[in-house]
Amino acid sequence: MIRTLAVVGTGLIGTSVALAAVRRGVTVHLLDTDASAVRTAELLGAGTARPPGEPVDLAVLAVPPSKVADVLSEQQARGLARSYTDVASVKAGPEREVLARAPRPAHFVGGHPMAGRERSGPLAARPDLFQGRTWVLTPSRLTSKRAFDRALELIALCGGVPAVMQSSAHDETVAITSHAPHLMASLVAARLGGRSPVTALLVGQGFRDATRIARGEARLWTDIIETNAAEIAGVLSALESDLTQLLTAMRDLSARDPRNRAQSRRNLTALLERGVAALESLPAPAPGPLAADTARVDVTIAERPGELARLLDTAAGYGAGPDTVAAPVAPHGPDGPLVIRFGLAPAEAATLAEKLAAAGWDVVREDDVPDGRAPALVGAPG
Amino acid sequence: MIRTLAVVGTGLIGTSVALAAVRRGVTVHLLDTDASAVRTAELLGAGTARPPGEPVDLAVLAVPPSKVADVLSEQQARGLARSYTDVASVKAGPEREVLARAPRPAHFVGGHPMAGRERSGPLAARPDLFQGRTWVLTPSRLTSKRAFDRALELIALCGGVPAVMQSSAHDETVAITSHAPHLMASLVAARLGGRSPVTALLVGQGFRDATRIARGEARLWTDIIETNAAEIAGVLSALESDLTQLLTAMRDLSARDPRNRAQSRRNLTALLERGVAALESLPAPAPGPLAADTARVDVTIAERPGELARLLDTAAGYGAGPDTVAAPVAPHGPDGPLVIRFGLAPAEAATLAEKLAAAGWDVVREDDVPDGRAPALVGAPG
Repeated sequence: MIRTLAVVGTGLIGTSVALAAVRRGVTVHLLDTDASAVRTAELLGAGTARPPGEPVDLAVLAVPPSKVADVLSEQQARGLARSYTDVASVKAGPEREVLARAPRPAHFVGGHPMAGRERSGPLAARPDLFQGRTWVLTPSRLTSKRAFDRALELIALCGGVPAVMQSSAHDETVAITSHAPHLMASLVAARLGGRSPVTALLVGQGFRDATRIARGEARLWTDIIETNAAEIAGVLSALESDLTQLLTAMRDLSARDPRNRAQSRRNLTALLERGVAALESLPAPAPGPLAADTARVDVTIAERPGELARLLDTAAGYGAGPDTVAAPVAPHGPDGPLVIRFGLAPAEAATLAEKLAAAGWDVVREDDVPDGRAPALVGAPG
Repeated sequence: MIRTLAVVGTGLIGTSVALAAVRRGVTVHLLDTDASAVRTAELLGAGTARPPGEPVDLAVLAVPPSKVADVLSEQQARGLARSYTDVASVKAGPEREVLARAPRPAHFVGGHPMAGRERSGPLAARPDLFQGRTWVLTPSRLTSKRAFDRALELIALCGGVPAVMQSSAHDETVAITSHAPHLMASLVAARLGGRSPVTALLVGQGFRDATRIARGEARLWTDIIETNAAEIAGVLSALESDLTQLLTAMRDLSARDPRNRAQSRRNLTALLERGVAALESLPAPAPGPLAADTARVDVTIAERPGELARLLDTAAGYGAGPDTVAAPVAPHGPDGPLVIRFGLAPAEAATLAEKLAAAGWDVVREDDVPDGRAPALVGAPG
């Protein structure tokens, strides 16, 4: 069991781990080469800046990937902890270095919590940063059972969801899900450089979302990307050839050559559809409307202007916000009454149905709208 | 003045325009080839599905870019309105077609509100969708003063911020700020296709944000992208050569060849920094901490673990959430007392300072922390 913890590096991730552990009664010792970062973390209640009197149960190394093996070697030489883990977002390179030169590589297991924020530094830390988030462990061929178990306990303390994979599989995957997307966003963002101020007027929320990751600190990201360079080069190479194909289609479309145009339009639509399909195959970050564990409440409404707005307002008052409205359906054809469908957790659905009925709304009983009947959907979530 | 409005196309944008206009007392007529979309919009209180008895003051064509000229020609032939505008996100191609074949091109001015949502359809509509958002108008060489003025009035009704530019300048810019970023996001998203389910475990918020635009409806986006193909091809071609350069650097870094490595690392950092700089040069979507119109409140805190957490909790109770904390400063050196700085609107800052002082906190008077003194910043927003 973890009774004492050391956190080396009191930035966003390290301080968040410390805050979570302190809340669970663990004694946490904070270390950082930047004295003001340690001080801020201590003032936040993340632990003490005093060094431990004896080795702690686990030390978390919250340092850039290129520093993991050096910091581990240094702290093992000093006897900081009995077990060690890290939180760097690249795993294979640091593991190789740990196996090559750390005094006791068996006492170390690599880790990577899938959590972060736009802001960095200890002030951005939150004890619930890892709640419900995947936290990958990448044991090496030497990792001891004890080091692995301590890391699992840490994940449990932080409310994370453990996943185990080989360091090489981890790095191959994050090259696709994190590092290459970051670089592509940097390329897109950099294209704004040197443009007239009018350009900023045409920057909408879509562009801001798409390039948010590219705001990350350039030196830290150079370290991350360099440490995973081979895997990232593979992904970028595939993206380069995808882009070349897309560019051919775009040139055909722009040349307005009727021979290639239809095929190029199909290629363009196919690419867009592949993107949509890949994104839709991802699990929802939170249960969306009509997910497996949602129940539906159908309400028939009168054909009066504003009637739908009135229903949505009433339902919102009973906790069914606009995002719970899946779609209006017209189960008896375009001229039949219109049915509005809400999707909520079963308990909430029961309450909503009861409240709406009591307020005089025409709530349809579940078996009145058979699933076999294809409803006319409008305004389904995009 | 606009007393009567027609909206052709009651999707997200059209219905939002209609809702905003109805709230300002305008009589709105709703038209759509999809009867259930019109019906939903009417039930939301966005206007009436009855056709107008005489030409309305302004008609808004909320249809895909390739349909603008056809729908305009058809409605002008029917005499739907005295003036027309559209909301399509591509402007030069539709303008060319309008000039070539609409019965009265002078009565039309192109428009593009920079607003949208992840969801589409009338149910996602909101009357405040355009509040504070840029709304571009692209008058052609024939656009009449009356058509232009009606469109300006519509923007004012919707709470938008008008901007005027040539259709070609608009399209060149949105190729950079919207269309090429969309396609790059599609390429990145499509790379997930066919991967093992484990991959989804390593998809974090950064990936979701970066690819959100690629969830857009593939057929509508094919239309948009095809209509602006030449400009987009130019941007993609530049991105292709940026990517080729980046790939060279990544291969050098992965080959671990010491000769090229230092230069390649510098090139990588320089790209990341160009991205960061371009994004930081954008105006903040909402005033951030310490923006021009914010005032600061500095509080000196005692050197006790948890003291900072206690202050942040107290301040949050007075409306100063965690995002108003700019940075702790140590104005008298690393061993002097630590000062926590909040950035808020001036009126809120005055209230916060008063409340904190009354609660016993040591609020520093504005002139006690001179700006000339370089504060030790930690944890500044990333």
